[in-house]
Amino acid sequence: MDGKISFDSFKEIDLRVAEVLEVKEHPDADRLYVIQIRVGEEKKQIVAGIRGRYSREELIGKKVIVVNNLETAVIRGEESNGMILAAGGTDGPIVLIPESDVEAGAKVK
Amino acid sequence: MDGKISFDSFKEIDLRVAEVLEVKEHPDADRLYVIQIRVGEEKKQIVAGIRGRYSREELIGKKVIVVNNLETAVIRGEESNGMILAAGGTDGPIVLIPESDVEAGAKVK
Repeated sequence: MDGKISFDSFKEIDLRVAEVLEVKEHPDADRLYVIQIRVGEEKKQIVAGIRGRYSREELIGKKVIVVNNLETAVIRGEESNGMILAAGGTDGPIVLIPESDVEAGAKVK
Repeated sequence: MDGKISFDSFKEIDLRVAEVLEVKEHPDADRLYVIQIRVGEEKKQIVAGIRGRYSREELIGKKVIVVNNLETAVIRGEESNGMILAAGGTDGPIVLIPESDVEAGAKVK
């Protein structure tokens, strides 16, 4: 975990700007949202633990950053195709955003 | 590059919030800055290709996101100990920031 990584290892991670289209409460987990995002032309579902910090309204339309090529996971029965990046804040994770507007699908590097 | 990655692979990448302390023009490359950042208590130097988009003044004091455990590289004679994340915009890369203030050193996950 504290080891150094090569630039080639970093390049294997596909980080992208994504637009949040839809946010629902996870039916079976108090802290999770089930979120529909758009990455370029592709739409997909992600499960994210940012419910304590953000309302559904705050998230919809927001551009966030996703790990776009993470293996599909099933989290308490809901499929998750990626991960929304957030930084640990004292009141819960704070999502990362582009400093000014960028199209959904833009590559992060 | 288009392959899927595991969550364990992603966890090898140490992404952190960093504060920009100082920005100089790279003496030997028009598009590069030599930037001093602070990640928690640690201060270090990073070379970044965001000079076309951001002035020195815009960057100083900003909280950005860095790949904190990238192998040291020497870029045109200047040491770089990490990488500042930015998304491809039409007028050059746009840095990523936390959506609200987070302390420098906070882990991104």
